[in-house]
Amino acid sequence: MTRRHLAWALLPLLVSGTWAGEAELARLLEILRQNGTITEVQYQELIGALRVDATKTIAATPIPDTPQVTEVRVDSSAGGMEVAAYDGESWFRLGGGLALDTASYSESGMGDGAELRRARLELEGSYHGDFGYALELDFAGDEVDVKDVYLDYLAWHPVSLRIGHFKEPFGLEPQTSFEHLTFMERALPDELAPGRSLGIGLHHLGSDWTLAGGVFAHSLNQEAEEGTNQGWGVTARATWAPWHEEERAIHLGLSGAYRAVKPGDYLRFRRGPESHLTGIEFLDTGKKSIADASALQRVALESAAVWGPLSLQGEYLWAGVERRDSVPALDFAGWYLQGSWFLTGESRYYRYEKGDFGRVRPQRSSGAWELALRYSALELNDTEIDGGRERNLTLGVNWYLEPQLRLMANYTRVYNDRQASDNGDLASGDDPRILQMRLQADF
Amino acid sequence: MTRRHLAWALLPLLVSGTWAGEAELARLLEILRQNGTITEVQYQELIGALRVDATKTIAATPIPDTPQVTEVRVDSSAGGMEVAAYDGESWFRLGGGLALDTASYSESGMGDGAELRRARLELEGSYHGDFGYALELDFAGDEVDVKDVYLDYLAWHPVSLRIGHFKEPFGLEPQTSFEHLTFMERALPDELAPGRSLGIGLHHLGSDWTLAGGVFAHSLNQEAEEGTNQGWGVTARATWAPWHEEERAIHLGLSGAYRAVKPGDYLRFRRGPESHLTGIEFLDTGKKSIADASALQRVALESAAVWGPLSLQGEYLWAGVERRDSVPALDFAGWYLQGSWFLTGESRYYRYEKGDFGRVRPQRSSGAWELALRYSALELNDTEIDGGRERNLTLGVNWYLEPQLRLMANYTRVYNDRQASDNGDLASGDDPRILQMRLQADF
Amino acid sequence: MTRRHLAWALLPLLVSGTWAGEAELARLLEILRQNGTITEVQYQELIGALRVDATKTIAATPIPDTPQVTEVRVDSSAGGMEVAAYDGESWFRLGGGLALDTASYSESGMGDGAELRRARLELEGSYHGDFGYALELDFAGDEVDVKDVYLDYLAWHPVSLRIGHFKEPFGLEPQTSFEHLTFMERALPDELAPGRSLGIGLHHLGSDWTLAGGVFAHSLNQEAEEGTNQGWGVTARATWAPWHEEERAIHLGLSGAYRAVKPGDYLRFRRGPESHLTGIEFLDTGKKSIADASALQRVALESAAVWGPLSLQGEYLWAGVERRDSVPALDFAGWYLQGSWFLTGESRYYRYEKGDFGRVRPQRSSGAWELALRYSALELNDTEIDGGRERNLTLGVNWYLEPQLRLMANYTRVYNDRQASDNGDLASGDDPRILQMRLQADF
Repeated sequence: MTRRHLAWALLPLLVSGTWAGEAELARLLEILRQNGTITEVQYQELIGALRVDATKTIAATPIPDTPQVTEVRVDSSAGGMEVAAYDGESWFRLGGGLALDTASYSESGMGDGAELRRARLELEGSYHGDFGYALELDFAGDEVDVKDVYLDYLAWHPVSLRIGHFKEPFGLEPQTSFEHLTFMERALPDELAPGRSLGIGLHHLGSDWTLAGGVFAHSLNQEAEEGTNQGWGVTARATWAPWHEEERAIHLGLSGAYRAVKPGDYLRFRRGPESHLTGIEFLDTGKKSIADASALQRVALESAAVWGPLSLQGEYLWAGVERRDSVPALDFAGWYLQGSWFLTGESRYYRYEKGDFGRVRPQRSSGAWELALRYSALELNDTEIDGGRERNLTLGVNWYLEPQLRLMANYTRVYNDRQASDNGDLASGDDPRILQMRLQADF
Repeated sequence: MTRRHLAWALLPLLVSGTWAGEAELARLLEILRQNGTITEVQYQELIGALRVDATKTIAATPIPDTPQVTEVRVDSSAGGMEVAAYDGESWFRLGGGLALDTASYSESGMGDGAELRRARLELEGSYHGDFGYALELDFAGDEVDVKDVYLDYLAWHPVSLRIGHFKEPFGLEPQTSFEHLTFMERALPDELAPGRSLGIGLHHLGSDWTLAGGVFAHSLNQEAEEGTNQGWGVTARATWAPWHEEERAIHLGLSGAYRAVKPGDYLRFRRGPESHLTGIEFLDTGKKSIADASALQRVALESAAVWGPLSLQGEYLWAGVERRDSVPALDFAGWYLQGSWFLTGESRYYRYEKGDFGRVRPQRSSGAWELALRYSALELNDTEIDGGRERNLTLGVNWYLEPQLRLMANYTRVYNDRQASDNGDLASGDDPRILQMRLQADF
Repeated sequence: MTRRHLAWALLPLLVSGTWAGEAELARLLEILRQNGTITEVQYQELIGALRVDATKTIAATPIPDTPQVTEVRVDSSAGGMEVAAYDGESWFRLGGGLALDTASYSESGMGDGAELRRARLELEGSYHGDFGYALELDFAGDEVDVKDVYLDYLAWHPVSLRIGHFKEPFGLEPQTSFEHLTFMERALPDELAPGRSLGIGLHHLGSDWTLAGGVFAHSLNQEAEEGTNQGWGVTARATWAPWHEEERAIHLGLSGAYRAVKPGDYLRFRRGPESHLTGIEFLDTGKKSIADASALQRVALESAAVWGPLSLQGEYLWAGVERRDSVPALDFAGWYLQGSWFLTGESRYYRYEKGDFGRVRPQRSSGAWELALRYSALELNDTEIDGGRERNLTLGVNWYLEPQLRLMANYTRVYNDRQASDNGDLASGDDPRILQMRLQADF
């Protein structure tokens, strides 16, 4: 680093011309000093260097038109490799990601051990700026899982159009990428969110709000019944950041989804504790218990606040099942509340243009440390359905060694009601405690 | 390749300077990153672009001896990313492809809906010019499907040798790559073509003709029975273009294939209508009905003509099954005829060196529009086998937005005979109509 | 991304001259406006001034060494494609590998034919030099097989730390990469080595010795029983090269492994002859025969010598099963001895820093030729277990066409004892002869 910057610093001594943006750069420096973005010392350093450059030289020969020459880099911040055409319009990125987990459960029979939670390959790019594409595959569990696969039409900026297999726009944590979650697993009520489906959607970006909506068929990640119509749904999400500045933001969001359920189809909600290794799911509405549904409605209320190293985030998710033949409707709901504190001063990175959270970048070479606490609850009991009610209290510690590399530890206390325990998953029927760790890397 | 490297070599002669504010801008970016005004990603983007500009303006000093410096580009016509060594002999390409389908059927029970038809990853390259390699995988359906996997020996030009898993040289449409088909699916008689198999083949390229042949074991895309010899076959194809010039060509082709069938093995032909989403296959010779086969012979007669925006193409495919113990032989056959018209003046791209069709490139930024009509027929009835007879009439519209991006719509009328309907696939037993669309992208 | 490309697209309209840095300044202004550092008015002032500047300015002096430019290359020796930052600290490599086999067996029922033995995709790289990562997948058999997936911590050089799924450090041939083996398959006693597991390990590199050890959970390549604790083990390996110079080396090694076996788990050893295509495994301790094991211990004694074109290599592997309830322990063991001679004068490449063998590089353009002979034995008979005893005598010929491209032929005589033949795999119960060939490429 230092050597490289030295080279840059020496540059003005070596060259003796000026350029067409010098005045603008000088003016920008002045503005940045005035609004306190750079200090007086920094301003003097920069403007002084500019002043040294005295003579204006104008060359005669144009730079040749080399449209095919490209830029390639190891993207040291986002990871992976990026190739971009010189005009900046066509680009291509190859990357991937890993997560290695180990978990220990206080109840025997839950399956202590280790697993490869995530082994991801990602290709994305753009043709001529107007069209974007993405193909994301997961190979954990020695199986292929097609994640994001879509095409974007970008020329209507600030509106973009997306066709393919992607997340229905619903909820804050469900929308946040796996690699940017504060805890190892999403909170219990995530079970009520729709996930990825094949569909077509629009996304509108305002100055402090977003609006997204789409029409969706089924998900590639669930088995569709052979030879039956696959159903459809509509989903929409609106977010508003009434206040956002550097390292400070307030986020509010509202999502809604409607999905028609065909006669003969079954709905099922089930959820294990906030730990992936164990296959045990305490909450389960049963395989074919909800057989007469005609429609599924969902709502999510989102809120989050970032104040420097501190953040709060909470969501309420609700799913309502309408049933045929005057059978009473079902209501399932859950919520969570979480807080986090960066001991080392970093801040969660709120992306107001997407209405979600992005990558945390440690400020010092020893990395960033974060403490987090979450309480979550999900109830799948209603009318004759005894899916159970579970609450998880989780303490999390994150060590961000690099922007793309994180060590996570989560300790969770699980509280189950009688219906949750009655599934007979565990002989003891107790409320387990879970200690789990993850090593996560993106590239 | 060489031309572009010439551009690099000339660069130092054309430009002779740099500019004076670069260092200051670099330093400012660093300060802004440090105080959090811009993110790491934004910093990397800007400093990366600066870095490229710096290379662009390398002055009159000779390029240092960097034999390993390579050319990398986002291949904006073929898509994907290509890395080539400076000598042009070693190169490597990474690409992929997507196809997203939606289909609607007039008969219930055929399964309206959407699907990811294709999610492909391709690696290919060359060592020192003499050896080429390819590895192509498809992940649609959350499963791995190994497609092309082969090594080429290229030093005997115009003869090349290929070893691996690749398409047996047979037929025109069977040989044409998925991404360059005029219609969404291949015509009905494609069922009689052999597809990809493990084998070894030779390909000879003349000035207006090609000759290809090979010896083949089984296909990786079918289940081989455990512990049995896997059979073998020979396949050959000859093509002749008696007339070809820019945007005009006549193609004639003849293919033949022989495959020995071991005692105990079964042959089965089955085919759905020209739509992939539905799992229903009206034509089916039955699971073990053809149990006494000793040999399978195939013939394809190919013809095509391109006259500017107009094209015609037709094929006749025949498969003959010889049976043991004087059981009468079976004959199955099919054919199709198709015409296409580019409203916007483009032309189908005939590749006389391969005897197939390649990528269409729209001439204007609004894209290319193509209308196409196809009639196809396949009969699997003979002697005691009642596989059925089906005919499909399809109207197709293609909108080529970019060379690598296409929107397709196909409307198909299906006509089944009594045997085809008698399989009991549909309660109604009727002749369905199909409307389907595809969004297809290569990169 | 969208916005960036928009900015790039607008740029030509905004400025009619250009300079190296103008685009970056325009983009920076946009970013600063977006995050509120400068106001809209200030932005318009600056971007407007930029627009006005039309002249192209190019200075006279060369830019010094541009340290941030990245190096990309088609790695013509190791194959694949490598992208490295110029400082050499961050890099990224994408590669793959193929192996195409054909085999013929003297005994019918063993399944003559061809197969894709290996279809591998590899991503690896490093962040800032301190952290390394690897993700390796195999797609042969139309299935996903997760191979190496790990993160390395490299800053403690000469000690490195590895976490993930990787080979337990045990044995010489088991440790040698598939692509660098002298014969097509590893020797019979490889069945007694532990393979890849999820774990954490340390590796210490001395001047002529290595020491590696780790703690391991289960392997991703075996099915773990649902809901049970997955066991754990410790493994260590030490190697010493009392003498190593250019093309001459002596290698000695000792490995040991201990694995606890939980009550209810079963151990099973089974092995086919040294040929992969056939599914037949002559040696088999039986599905649940070893049901009462409490611990599994393993030892490997390694030795190898390279003297120019000649090399010798031999190993002895032992596995001991301790059983509960005073049931007598079981002992299984095997060994092999192999010699190889490069007719063309090359030498096997001993990597003393890893204690294994690496890539052979042919010295002339016609490639390198190697003759090799191996005798191997494995006995799985002990106490009441009749797993059988098998010996294989193999003659191998290798033609290295390029460093990454090899043609291999192996002829093997199989000798089975009565217990091995008694499994009833083959009607004849005889000792088959095997002729097999492989075309192998890495990239």
